[in-house]
Amino acid sequence: MSQASSSFLAFEPAPAAAPRAYRVLDAASVVDVLAGLPEIRARLGGAPSAWRVRDVADGNLNSVFLVDGPDGGVCAKQSLPYVRVAKDTWPLDASRARFETAYSARLAPFVGRLAPTLFHFDPELLLIVMEKLEPHIILRKGLIAGRRYPRLAADVAEYVAEASVRTSDLAAPFETRAADIALFSQNLALQRISVDLIFLDPYTKSARNKIAPALEPWAATLRRDVEIKSAAARLRLAYLTKTQSLLHGDLHSGSIMVTPEETRVIDGEFAWVGPTGFDVGNFIAHLVMAWFAKPFHAEGGKAAAARAAIEQNIVAFWTAFRRRFLEIAAEATPGGDGLPDSHFGDPAGARRRSEIILAYLDDLCRDAIGFLATKVIRRIVGFAQIEDFLVIVDPDKRARAQARALSLACSLLVEPDRYRDIAALVAALPKFDRADLDPGFAP
Amino acid sequence: MSQASSSFLAFEPAPAAAPRAYRVLDAASVVDVLAGLPEIRARLGGAPSAWRVRDVADGNLNSVFLVDGPDGGVCAKQSLPYVRVAKDTWPLDASRARFETAYSARLAPFVGRLAPTLFHFDPELLLIVMEKLEPHIILRKGLIAGRRYPRLAADVAEYVAEASVRTSDLAAPFETRAADIALFSQNLALQRISVDLIFLDPYTKSARNKIAPALEPWAATLRRDVEIKSAAARLRLAYLTKTQSLLHGDLHSGSIMVTPEETRVIDGEFAWVGPTGFDVGNFIAHLVMAWFAKPFHAEGGKAAAARAAIEQNIVAFWTAFRRRFLEIAAEATPGGDGLPDSHFGDPAGARRRSEIILAYLDDLCRDAIGFLATKVIRRIVGFAQIEDFLVIVDPDKRARAQARALSLACSLLVEPDRYRDIAALVAALPKFDRADLDPGFAP
Repeated sequence: MSQASSSFLAFEPAPAAAPRAYRVLDAASVVDVLAGLPEIRARLGGAPSAWRVRDVADGNLNSVFLVDGPDGGVCAKQSLPYVRVAKDTWPLDASRARFETAYSARLAPFVGRLAPTLFHFDPELLLIVMEKLEPHIILRKGLIAGRRYPRLAADVAEYVAEASVRTSDLAAPFETRAADIALFSQNLALQRISVDLIFLDPYTKSARNKIAPALEPWAATLRRDVEIKSAAARLRLAYLTKTQSLLHGDLHSGSIMVTPEETRVIDGEFAWVGPTGFDVGNFIAHLVMAWFAKPFHAEGGKAAAARAAIEQNIVAFWTAFRRRFLEIAAEATPGGDGLPDSHFGDPAGARRRSEIILAYLDDLCRDAIGFLATKVIRRIVGFAQIEDFLVIVDPDKRARAQARALSLACSLLVEPDRYRDIAALVAALPKFDRADLDPGFAP
Repeated sequence: MSQASSSFLAFEPAPAAAPRAYRVLDAASVVDVLAGLPEIRARLGGAPSAWRVRDVADGNLNSVFLVDGPDGGVCAKQSLPYVRVAKDTWPLDASRARFETAYSARLAPFVGRLAPTLFHFDPELLLIVMEKLEPHIILRKGLIAGRRYPRLAADVAEYVAEASVRTSDLAAPFETRAADIALFSQNLALQRISVDLIFLDPYTKSARNKIAPALEPWAATLRRDVEIKSAAARLRLAYLTKTQSLLHGDLHSGSIMVTPEETRVIDGEFAWVGPTGFDVGNFIAHLVMAWFAKPFHAEGGKAAAARAAIEQNIVAFWTAFRRRFLEIAAEATPGGDGLPDSHFGDPAGARRRSEIILAYLDDLCRDAIGFLATKVIRRIVGFAQIEDFLVIVDPDKRARAQARALSLACSLLVEPDRYRDIAALVAALPKFDRADLDPGFAP
């Protein structure tokens, strides 16, 4: 795998792959492709005619097939030349599979079993063949069902902390960082989606927005309020100019697969070198939205218990991320080119290095709170809605849950100093239950 | 030229150029190459045997030839596979000419006649053929001679402001910025020089450092003082993570050619997308060093008058840069993706956009003061010394001039809040004349 990783990074075809023209694969043709790959064929076992194929596409963009043979299974994911959920109307450059592959290969040495193993990448078909995760389910579905994941917070914290430090100037040589930046700066199609769907559309009249009628006053507020809009613009500017570390770029509860014992981060196709707080804030944003949706998923005591578990996850993730970030930065020897070892050699220097790293961490955590807010807003009045709210059938109840989350998000954008630590944020959550549909609500 | 620009950007050979293997050119062979380029041949006129060639290499890295024919002249600059001034000991990837060419082509639409016109780029020979500047001289030599350049401050301010805004998220679309970042992130050989020679070596025992015996106590202070070293490290981290705009990367008085009427910025081979304050601070750093050297270049009243002229240049540059930066950012329509027009449409939004841009400018000006300090330090105890000091023959006098500049630089690093505007910096200059060789001097 380590040898293969370097070819994944360089976008080279694996030796076994004969070049073939791009075409959209279906359940039958994906079997034909996999049957031509000796390593995959050996992994599945038996005759290809006996393999079972399931189309399990769940996200917005790609085809995903699970293929099982007598000896094992694999997951085959293909980039499509359009947005899957908006096929006829939204063409999309399909090269994202290259970036997902490069991202996975870049992080594999650091995150290990917290991500699925890559087996094969076909750069012509833009097809990734990887470990099939079973019995893992999408975290979002588990949260909606009110399940508990005792490993989740620590595992995601470990993943994000490793990625955040190892690919930053705190641990990586300048040349490695420049190569990451040069490579992922080419991930334009998906980044144009991010910069527009997250930071632009929700604050404008965009045909892509999906706004429940009850939330129209909220949407009007987002389009009108200078404080809210300018906070969103500042975050967009930070997203575009702060090349701190390699981001997953889409780290929400639909990009994490779980069992009670295991956690796997998937779907790195939005990879980008940007502000470290972006992934941190995104993960928490989806926990926060799950929290606001919860009373409409479950009754009374059950909802309260599920909410308490989500709160614990938020605090545990934040705390573990900060602790592991500082530990990994302290362990990284030699450190990266950002804070050269030579400048911090004596005990006073070592203390100063720790202070600078702590300030860097505090700064990225402030960024995270802002990005969290933008992620909540884009999932409620923007194009890509989330199941946590969509499963609430009653439109009035759904809008109330969404408006409460919007109310928190706008407070985070406009009054960030009220949320200087994660305890303050978690303590504030219940106040926003009183907001309901009123965009003027002040907790 | 505008069509040619796009091929310069893409590193494509100009159609007229037959591919040829790289070899180091001398005065004879450069004529052979130019004679094979119809456009250049027409520009020079006459028979190549009648052309006059002068080897005028002056910088640290490259070959430069001026070639004159009966009808006109050109400048031919070739990257060498080593550092010219340290030929036997320091190999250096020669691809820097590609980045210089791309940089020039990228900025040409904005800076116009403030840079020489490119005529031809040979990507095999890494040879740039450009406008010969005559009777322009290197600004540094003019400053040493005490000449006055009434256009200098406004012209350099215009150049830096155009580059700083037009290639930033304030004016450029996200995709253009990403392409700049992807391209110039590959300029590794020269960037490794920058990050080490500027931010590392002067604070360590490096064999590349050149330290006058009288400055050894100063060098020891730089290696020991945690405040100074950590400030330099923070600036290194900012240089590596703050991708605000396309930088010249080496904008000192040796990279500017002048007459009293004209100003031309040359030598963009250190181009890099980084913190905008870097170029701003670099230019001022070299004016500041000229100021400290001046009493040892000229006597009494003449030195005082030359110093006053330098002070005026510093203030005029800073003021004009800030004014032009704000004007260009306000004029840029549509603005870049950083501060989307949609978020600032009404009068309150327009005011807020101005406030955000002013905060962005203030932040980059704070960065500039820090980078200024690191640029002074690296030119006095580092590898690449400057003529302003080297022309002072008496080693004691030279060291005193250098120590005074070092003393200011360390104050800028450690007490930046004392220099909140350029007037405070200029007003402080004379105090550091009293520092002389004492690293413990406190003004």
